[in-house]
Amino acid sequence: MPKNIYFTPGPSALYFTVEEHMRSALRQQIPSISHRSRQFSYIYEETVAHLRALTDLPDDYQVFFTASATEIWERLLQSCVIEDSLHLVNGAFSRRFYNMAAQLGKSAQMFEVPDGGVVLPAALNTNIPPELIAITHNETSTGVQQPLAHLKEIREKFPDAITTIDVVSSFPLVELPFEYIDSAYFSVQKCFGLPAGLGVWIINQKTIDRALKLAEQTNTAHHGIASLWQKYQTYQTPVTPNVLSIFLLNKVLKDMIDKGIGRLRMEGKYKAALIYQLMESHENLKPFVSNPDWRSQTVLVGDTGGRTEQIIQKLATQGIVLGSGYGSHKKNHIRIANFPTHSKEQMELLVDKLTTIYEG
Amino acid sequence: MPKNIYFTPGPSALYFTVEEHMRSALRQQIPSISHRSRQFSYIYEETVAHLRALTDLPDDYQVFFTASATEIWERLLQSCVIEDSLHLVNGAFSRRFYNMAAQLGKSAQMFEVPDGGVVLPAALNTNIPPELIAITHNETSTGVQQPLAHLKEIREKFPDAITTIDVVSSFPLVELPFEYIDSAYFSVQKCFGLPAGLGVWIINQKTIDRALKLAEQTNTAHHGIASLWQKYQTYQTPVTPNVLSIFLLNKVLKDMIDKGIGRLRMEGKYKAALIYQLMESHENLKPFVSNPDWRSQTVLVGDTGGRTEQIIQKLATQGIVLGSGYGSHKKNHIRIANFPTHSKEQMELLVDKLTTIYEG
Repeated sequence: MPKNIYFTPGPSALYFTVEEHMRSALRQQIPSISHRSRQFSYIYEETVAHLRALTDLPDDYQVFFTASATEIWERLLQSCVIEDSLHLVNGAFSRRFYNMAAQLGKSAQMFEVPDGGVVLPAALNTNIPPELIAITHNETSTGVQQPLAHLKEIREKFPDAITTIDVVSSFPLVELPFEYIDSAYFSVQKCFGLPAGLGVWIINQKTIDRALKLAEQTNTAHHGIASLWQKYQTYQTPVTPNVLSIFLLNKVLKDMIDKGIGRLRMEGKYKAALIYQLMESHENLKPFVSNPDWRSQTVLVGDTGGRTEQIIQKLATQGIVLGSGYGSHKKNHIRIANFPTHSKEQMELLVDKLTTIYEG
Repeated sequence: MPKNIYFTPGPSALYFTVEEHMRSALRQQIPSISHRSRQFSYIYEETVAHLRALTDLPDDYQVFFTASATEIWERLLQSCVIEDSLHLVNGAFSRRFYNMAAQLGKSAQMFEVPDGGVVLPAALNTNIPPELIAITHNETSTGVQQPLAHLKEIREKFPDAITTIDVVSSFPLVELPFEYIDSAYFSVQKCFGLPAGLGVWIINQKTIDRALKLAEQTNTAHHGIASLWQKYQTYQTPVTPNVLSIFLLNKVLKDMIDKGIGRLRMEGKYKAALIYQLMESHENLKPFVSNPDWRSQTVLVGDTGGRTEQIIQKLATQGIVLGSGYGSHKKNHIRIANFPTHSKEQMELLVDKLTTIYEG
């Protein structure tokens, strides 16, 4: 049976080299090595070095591993917030981070816009200086993207806050201005095309210092920044990590370095343009995000006017898997992942197939 | 290069069918399927059915997935304990669970014995009825095993407590008396021979009901029993799970059912007897746990009198990897995993090699 092409926005298609790296991991018996061995520490250290090289990560930023990006939300709140977090909510995932803060008993403030929009920095009026600001760069639920220029404005407004950015479904294609960000995080099953089961947390010294100070005052959470930081000194983790996934991430990072981040980003823009162009030329499949500057380059969302199920089923019979809308948009949106593993040829094929559906 | 035989007590050797199942997972594109799809729910449901069939799990017990067994400690404390937990501490891992309770601000009580011993039920004198009792069946750090007969006594002493048992490195070879246990948990990188990155939590209705009641009163944790239970209704998980690992667990469970749990347990006993017999016949490699009734059948620990490094290095040159002692026992213990994937032939080979080392 021929394989499907998964354009779902995570889990998505595996990065095209993953199967070979999986075979290599089994040959090298990576799943059997101890996470307290030098062999594991070396893999961890090299993975950080590769991430640094690929994305120009400054020396001041370190890299922790968790089970998921959702876990990072929880550990950020537990490790960095006594009282007040501030959330820019523009979709289901940024709202879930806010809900978690409320659930954990924080005085969380939310600034919200309807789906498809972004919270403008000017709207962030508060008398309570937040300890943490939660920004979602790329809302996987609706395909809206917070312009990077806003980060500078937000930093200037709240210089003391720990500014965090969710780049779950946009990193490493987004070029982050690290000077305005203290913490960024992603999951490996999006742009990196790996099996789910690993969250990656980029964190600067300011965030670590804040957490260490807070850990002295309160009942610190298990698996918080303090314990991750302590074990990081020897490139280890407080709990048994997903060693296989870290190994695979390391290998895919190397492949991406060899290909060149510039080329990956350029190809991403080209493929996104193909899809948005198609959407703009069809009345019945318009881009959900109306402002072109706010449109995601990695999760491309179209409004089908209720024809989602029909389109998805038609493509499924041809081995092409798209994402349906998220939550209340289930029947009205299609979501198309545009990750590094999706080739130009695959995206052109998808455009052809969608054109045939729309033009008969 | 020939492969090593890993006798390390987790991560350990992969179960001998895992590589084939990994290939099958890639062929079926399991890492790309959505965790909200029927395909995933079916895998989850079947995994529960297989676990039920293999281990005679009563209908009243359900199965949740987390990132690790360590995470289950945390979620148990957050979901089931307002104030008081009681911990039977007989090694590094049971102590770590106790420490976590203290760290999370609980009034944790500890009953402790020196390494190599077990806490007897009669010793559990307390005026504070605990909400949760933490028992470690098999201490991976020292190879001591709590006799199952104690579970009945503990239940009779504290009938209202949630009785939890850590079977991280003994399940499914241990035949659990579920009538005296409310919650049991393990990680897949021990007896199931899978890559690390998944915790499995067996939980009964009493525990779920307790957690739901507590969730109404307090700030519930993210990823606690309440949210796991809610998503379990449709065999889903609150966060993106390690789908690949759940798929592999499902397949290995089926392989174990086909082989027969009785046969697995019998082979386990035979292989343990081989090693303990060897240890008892050599002055310089005696079993660390002196009481034969308290000796683990799955993590076999010998006292080398300081020769650990020498033995481990000698075997390593022959492609055999043993575990060193844990923590303060590093230089004086060897730890030998006796999991279902370790064949009788491999264990006999190990006995031969150790005999050669000891007898020249």
